[in-house]
Amino acid sequence: MLICREVGEAMSIKLYDLVGHDEKRPFSPHCWKVAFALAHKGLEFESVPARFRDIQSLEDGASRTVPLIRDGEQVISESFRIALYLDEAYPDLPPLFKGEGTVPLTRFIERWAHQTVYAQIARMILGDLFAILDEGDREYFRKTREARFGQKLEDVPVGREERLPAFRASLDPLRSMVERQAFIAGEEPCFADYIIAGGFQWARVSSSFQLLETDDPVAGWFERCLDLYGGLARSIAAAA
Amino acid sequence: MLICREVGEAMSIKLYDLVGHDEKRPFSPHCWKVAFALAHKGLEFESVPARFRDIQSLEDGASRTVPLIRDGEQVISESFRIALYLDEAYPDLPPLFKGEGTVPLTRFIERWAHQTVYAQIARMILGDLFAILDEGDREYFRKTREARFGQKLEDVPVGREERLPAFRASLDPLRSMVERQAFIAGEEPCFADYIIAGGFQWARVSSSFQLLETDDPVAGWFERCLDLYGGLARSIAAAA
Repeated sequence: MLICREVGEAMSIKLYDLVGHDEKRPFSPHCWKVAFALAHKGLEFESVPARFRDIQSLEDGASRTVPLIRDGEQVISESFRIALYLDEAYPDLPPLFKGEGTVPLTRFIERWAHQTVYAQIARMILGDLFAILDEGDREYFRKTREARFGQKLEDVPVGREERLPAFRASLDPLRSMVERQAFIAGEEPCFADYIIAGGFQWARVSSSFQLLETDDPVAGWFERCLDLYGGLARSIAAAA
Repeated sequence: MLICREVGEAMSIKLYDLVGHDEKRPFSPHCWKVAFALAHKGLEFESVPARFRDIQSLEDGASRTVPLIRDGEQVISESFRIALYLDEAYPDLPPLFKGEGTVPLTRFIERWAHQTVYAQIARMILGDLFAILDEGDREYFRKTREARFGQKLEDVPVGREERLPAFRASLDPLRSMVERQAFIAGEEPCFADYIIAGGFQWARVSSSFQLLETDDPVAGWFERCLDLYGGLARSIAAAA
């Protein structure tokens, strides 16, 4: 990933990318979806580090969440909307969605990813996420997450080892696809792959907790995702 | 549904359709996927009742499972392969897959449907399925299902009321799509809708157990599926 904040790089797209205390380690799953998508299109981009408390002032308060991109005059938020924008704005570059009919089906897979994969990962890595945050973001994070989970932050991951079998079983739809082919759509990845890979990269960057057994076909698929685009996602070392 | 076994209807496609003791009540979810698919294409078909014990001799033993269709000289088995065949053989009729890119994504949704929705429904309605079978199919069914579940058939559905909240929660990816639009893909259904609807029709035809609350958006979506094609699926009364 280019981490580049020099003035005068007007041609490249800016991706406002959530980081913790180490601004070279973007960790947001939704931002990773967009990083994968930009690389898939072959578009140059700069990852602009942002902390939770910065988000509201980015691009004159254009969004309450990241990812947020600036592409010339265009400012777009939300990963799925950004992916749609990229295919529309750059129709001659490799498509993220192969045909209009794939958009709602990819949305379905996104909902599955968020409600099943992300939700379970979040519970397991919440303490690790808190630990990588910048000091100034911690109060906000604790307050919002404790409200969301209805529990003290430290209690949410308790018992995570016992939840692993159910988590791994819930990946069966993905597993049954990628045990026979490289990516969900076949030999080439599509946006659905990036949606799910974003979740695993989130865990990889923020936590050393081992979500997958190494011989799991899902682990093999994620390794292939890490290899994509010159090792874009692998260039951030796994959390130790 | 046409249930029509007169000689001389050479033009219409034959769908070998699994039934129990009442041969007018096809119940297999996989056969229902194909019935929906044929109707979606606007193809005439005759539902030819078959019992478990008949399958091996259908079309000279062409398949060990139903659905199985004969279309002129072609004999094809497995619901997903049949759907692909129909789009290939009848490219001018409404597509089940809107663009090649939708095929693997629909396959992903199929895996999700089987591993999540079908698996849970099967456990809940197993006793009801047994009860609608023809006497001559019961021994086969008991033996294979008891081996699969590792339990006595009568014990599998025990506690199903307590499993309903988890079942209903697992439908969130579907729910979050169809609470905003008529079908998964938008205003028109696609094969992914039929894959999931097949599972609910299986339950509807064989069991009076109420899987969904009536105000659940998933229930609303299934009602829309029942309305499709002149009420094709609704024409079989719900189990009392």
